[in-house]
Amino acid sequence: MSSRMNVSCLPETKRVAVFGGTHGNEMSGIMLINMWIQNATEIKRNGLLTKPFIGNPRAVEKCTRYIDTDLNRAFTPENLSSPDEGLPYEVQRAKEINQMFGPKGSSDAYDVIFDLHNTTSNMGSTLILESLEVGPQPQGVLRSNVFESMRTIMKHALDFLELFNSGVEFPPCTVEVFRVQERMDYPRDINGNISAMVHPHLQDCDWEPLNRGDPMFLTFDGRTILYEGTNTVYPTFINEAAYYEKQQAFVTTCREKLAANAIRKASK
Amino acid sequence: MSSRMNVSCLPETKRVAVFGGTHGNEMSGIMLINMWIQNATEIKRNGLLTKPFIGNPRAVEKCTRYIDTDLNRAFTPENLSSPDEGLPYEVQRAKEINQMFGPKGSSDAYDVIFDLHNTTSNMGSTLILESLEVGPQPQGVLRSNVFESMRTIMKHALDFLELFNSGVEFPPCTVEVFRVQERMDYPRDINGNISAMVHPHLQDCDWEPLNRGDPMFLTFDGRTILYEGTNTVYPTFINEAAYYEKQQAFVTTCREKLAANAIRKASK
Ligand SMILES: [Zn+2]
Ligand SMILES: [Zn+2]
Repeated sequence: MSSRMNVSCLPETKRVAVFGGTHGNEMSGIMLINMWIQNATEIKRNGLLTKPFIGNPRAVEKCTRYIDTDLNRAFTPENLSSPDEGLPYEVQRAKEINQMFGPKGSSDAYDVIFDLHNTTSNMGSTLILESLEVGPQPQGVLRSNVFESMRTIMKHALDFLELFNSGVEFPPCTVEVFRVQERMDYPRDINGNISAMVHPHLQDCDWEPLNRGDPMFLTFDGRTILYEGTNTVYPTFINEAAYYEKQQAFVTTCREKLAANAIRKASK
Repeated sequence: MSSRMNVSCLPETKRVAVFGGTHGNEMSGIMLINMWIQNATEIKRNGLLTKPFIGNPRAVEKCTRYIDTDLNRAFTPENLSSPDEGLPYEVQRAKEINQMFGPKGSSDAYDVIFDLHNTTSNMGSTLILESLEVGPQPQGVLRSNVFESMRTIMKHALDFLELFNSGVEFPPCTVEVFRVQERMDYPRDINGNISAMVHPHLQDCDWEPLNRGDPMFLTFDGRTILYEGTNTVYPTFINEAAYYEKQQAFVTTCREKLAANAIRKASK
């Protein structure tokens, strides 16, 4: 069969890390990881070493996003090669994690890392390259529905890797994805303070189309600010708590289709 | 008319304070107060001095509940009479606030203080003695629906005081209230770690009856824990983020009716 020609052959997956608590107030991943550290039965798979790991234990202890700086943005080449003295906690931690699970790009590195996050936005379950965002869930809160969604997704992800390692060939497929386009800030007054809120018609409408003329913000004095772009966009991370400090009310995305080849494990 | 005999005559209300940011990550009150500090038109009433005030500015700046300790629990007689040296930030702040708006119990004290809070629980709008809780809203997030509810309630509260001061007599009434009974902790393992979540059938069901045999918690290994009390209770503050550290999954309340006399301003 000629379809054989389009099969991508990829190396076996031997070591997988599952991270929770990269942000210390995102409870689902923290609780799952702590559970799996105590009892790993649920994440064991044939031929796979799976390591559950708390990314930012000091932030978890304080139930805060981070101590000094966002760990998720700390894995830069500059940080990873900086001398050890007087570093912000998360930069030091990024270096340790890079040593344990990397180094980035080396043959010693883990094959796959899943990084479990929560969002306060109404995004459902979202795979973002290697990270997984599940919401809506307030920071510092554990909701059973969000916990169980994350748990189920990790089950399927590990099942997939086990099947892949066993030699199963997965057929080609087309997946719909959302590609990030633009970061949208809140309207602000001349002092830089927020002067409007996400409009009630946009709040909780992650992934739904935003068309020219649709309400976007509501100012404190009751004025509606409309979306004036010409293209329909799909906002997400709408009103995420952690992004106020990043001057981001939401991001716009566009919908695309990606075609994936069939894949199977490379023969040795 | 004999009903006249049951009118409670109360002193005029001259000075009212409205607090936001007693907890620094509860955004509705913080944004309302900042708005009113810039422009007080909305809270001006005849014969009333209304002072908008940020309770915990350092916590607001860091968007965290508190710096050293919960300001809301810092107004104890011991704290208010302690010497000024080396105090936790919120204890020092409680002393300053007591000087500005009190002292507690003195004739210099403000007549009324409204203290604006948010909760992550699905409680709607709840008057708790002098404080007002509105939710659900994640910490660090500003939702327009919650903001507008709080704003509307404050409008009516100030309108009420203005009418009262003008001599209007308010008729007697009966109000249904919920009286707090018991604090319920999460189930825990022998190390004191949480071993169960609020059950999905209870989550978001603040103020709804919980009867003997109803699901209450779901353990991480999938077991349902039932409510076994004999009396029907009305849980609230269900899965509030800030109460994990207080070992509280929710509080139970019972429903009661309170009868209020007619009231009017005392003649001078
Ligand atoms: Zn995160
Ligand atoms: Zn509060």
